[in-house]
Amino acid sequence: MNVREKSLKLHKEKRGKIEIVGTMPVANSTDLAVAYTPGVAEPCLEIAKNKNNAYQYTMKGKTVAVITNGTAVLGLGNIGPEAGLPVVEGKALLLKRFGDVDAIPISLDSMDPDDIVNTIKNISPGFGGIHLEDIKAPECFYIENKLKELLDIPVYHDDQHGTAIAVLAGLYNALKLVNKDIEEVKVVINGAGASGIATAKLLMSTGVKNIVLCDINGALVEGDSALNDAQSEMSQITNRNFEKGTLADVIKAKDVFIGVSDGNVLTKEMVETMNKDSIVFALANPTPEIIPELAKAGGARVIATGRSDFPNQINNVLVFPGLFNGVLKVRAKEICDEMKIAAAKGIADLIKDSELTEDNIVPSVFDKGVCEAVSKAVVDIACKLGLVREYLI
Amino acid sequence: MNVREKSLKLHKEKRGKIEIVGTMPVANSTDLAVAYTPGVAEPCLEIAKNKNNAYQYTMKGKTVAVITNGTAVLGLGNIGPEAGLPVVEGKALLLKRFGDVDAIPISLDSMDPDDIVNTIKNISPGFGGIHLEDIKAPECFYIENKLKELLDIPVYHDDQHGTAIAVLAGLYNALKLVNKDIEEVKVVINGAGASGIATAKLLMSTGVKNIVLCDINGALVEGDSALNDAQSEMSQITNRNFEKGTLADVIKAKDVFIGVSDGNVLTKEMVETMNKDSIVFALANPTPEIIPELAKAGGARVIATGRSDFPNQINNVLVFPGLFNGVLKVRAKEICDEMKIAAAKGIADLIKDSELTEDNIVPSVFDKGVCEAVSKAVVDIACKLGLVREYLI
Repeated sequence: MNVREKSLKLHKEKRGKIEIVGTMPVANSTDLAVAYTPGVAEPCLEIAKNKNNAYQYTMKGKTVAVITNGTAVLGLGNIGPEAGLPVVEGKALLLKRFGDVDAIPISLDSMDPDDIVNTIKNISPGFGGIHLEDIKAPECFYIENKLKELLDIPVYHDDQHGTAIAVLAGLYNALKLVNKDIEEVKVVINGAGASGIATAKLLMSTGVKNIVLCDINGALVEGDSALNDAQSEMSQITNRNFEKGTLADVIKAKDVFIGVSDGNVLTKEMVETMNKDSIVFALANPTPEIIPELAKAGGARVIATGRSDFPNQINNVLVFPGLFNGVLKVRAKEICDEMKIAAAKGIADLIKDSELTEDNIVPSVFDKGVCEAVSKAVVDIACKLGLVREYLI
Repeated sequence: MNVREKSLKLHKEKRGKIEIVGTMPVANSTDLAVAYTPGVAEPCLEIAKNKNNAYQYTMKGKTVAVITNGTAVLGLGNIGPEAGLPVVEGKALLLKRFGDVDAIPISLDSMDPDDIVNTIKNISPGFGGIHLEDIKAPECFYIENKLKELLDIPVYHDDQHGTAIAVLAGLYNALKLVNKDIEEVKVVINGAGASGIATAKLLMSTGVKNIVLCDINGALVEGDSALNDAQSEMSQITNRNFEKGTLADVIKAKDVFIGVSDGNVLTKEMVETMNKDSIVFALANPTPEIIPELAKAGGARVIATGRSDFPNQINNVLVFPGLFNGVLKVRAKEICDEMKIAAAKGIADLIKDSELTEDNIVPSVFDKGVCEAVSKAVVDIACKLGLVREYLI
């Protein structure tokens, strides 16, 4: 049976990837009096006194909502809210298994950004965090920013920040191997949607100075009226040399290629025009921008993909379980850049210098230390920055 | 330790009453390829072809949302969405344990009926049913009716229909005992909010002809401009003799008292004015409208309360787990009156004639046969009426 058949069979058998399980006994009248009537009135009254008591007496403090509207599902595009359900259920499965975080999958029947913001605001009281998933750009930026203004719980868009953090983790170790300084390297990011833009922003906040963002029409250049608002904003802070042209034009003399775009858009010949000891992260799934063998033939020294069947799998699952584990522990109000950078360093530092090779720049997603390291990094920086609402550990 | 202390301790220890558990293995790359990337694309694509495939490949077909906005929590009034969380988590716990239904608790930060309707519509794609809980009257009627128009999944307000069905179940057996005909009896319902109005409607649809609804100001009479829309509508179809006055006035010569109001509002003297072999359901919690001892002294023959420490506990938990189990099995689009009546008969019929006594008119909530009987009754009537979308058993 191939993966397709296995997947359909298992999804059908299990009727979804998660289930709800009770934590309290209800075997007799005494149990029922505690969990239901009249006992349930007691936590209600405590929370009515102070709504923050919901963190103590309900699942809020250990639970996030994983929310899509089905407009940018995997590489499949806008396939509707019902069709987005397997993805948000999948994220809920991974959050629990890898991060010990309870997650509730929600798929929204709405494409209007303000309506989406209002809906998520309305359902937020029961959650300790919001994990946005597979919502199309550029709407995803507006939705995330508005929610951050409105809510006092962390709001996180995995397609943006999960990718950005995983890329940064890999980049830290790749740069160690080639002995280049993060402030000196020249970077091309191919793909100017959610992942590409967030990755560019995060790299800049760690000191990267020279980034050119490309979309399907080539380099984003300031003043191009064809850009959407988010791209236009990026064009004003990246590409300060005003490089124009296609990917083939602007990849010349660059140190790092980061692809979050489509399969087979990078050729061996393009890699040959990059600087010596180049780094190629070809993260498109399932077909990378270039297959590792070709990138190597073109002169790339460190190559990563999003796939588990090549070395160096850069995958968001390295990030989001530990990140939410950490922010829930400190009841953080938001996920700031410092936390994202700390999370990336936490992942990168799991690879000891003695183990660091071209084929081993990031830990396996099955390394049980990953969640712990990311969570600890987030908790530590939150403590350092005074972002801890109440320390529960 | 008393119930209060026990309840707070257990809610804190367990961090809420439910947790999320994964159903698929994710121990290695093969597992991950099936449940996550690239395998997860397969159910997404199947659902994109036909959104009803979500019933097969996701948790939709076994899952309901339990939704409050905290405006009418238990007898505590409008205590806010966070404070309503323990109740919706409690209902989710009971739906799973008693009905094998997965339920997701949601508490809404909104008091605007149209905003609530829109929010629930937006989050509905992942759910096979909507269980509304502790939303205040009269808004709850508008919200439920609008949602029924908009959605093709069952919408059910437990405070209304759970109470109405449980009352009807008890009433069937109580009437058997006193040998009175449901079409002949005269009924007073005290409490003209969600429960009282829904109970009146359901009793009328089973043939009860003479009902007087009372609120705190006495009998609802057609033409009273102080009534809200829902009460005004009821005043036009109940109380056709235009009885006026307080509960004490209108309870005279009635056969049945149903209290869904406040503690201690019914006196022994009032019961004495009822017809011979009267039936008193004093369902206010935790303090009933009259304690059973007093009602008996006043001449009542069959007495029920909402409490587990008296005989004949009329509790919604007899109803909602089996009801949702049944409607999910047949993928019903709605919960119609015929289903409600069938559910009530299913509960009543669990008490065999040989076991029927004044102190045994309804089964225990712990009787494992209850869910099965209610579910079967709902499935059977759905089949009979052609309301089955797809039979999955």
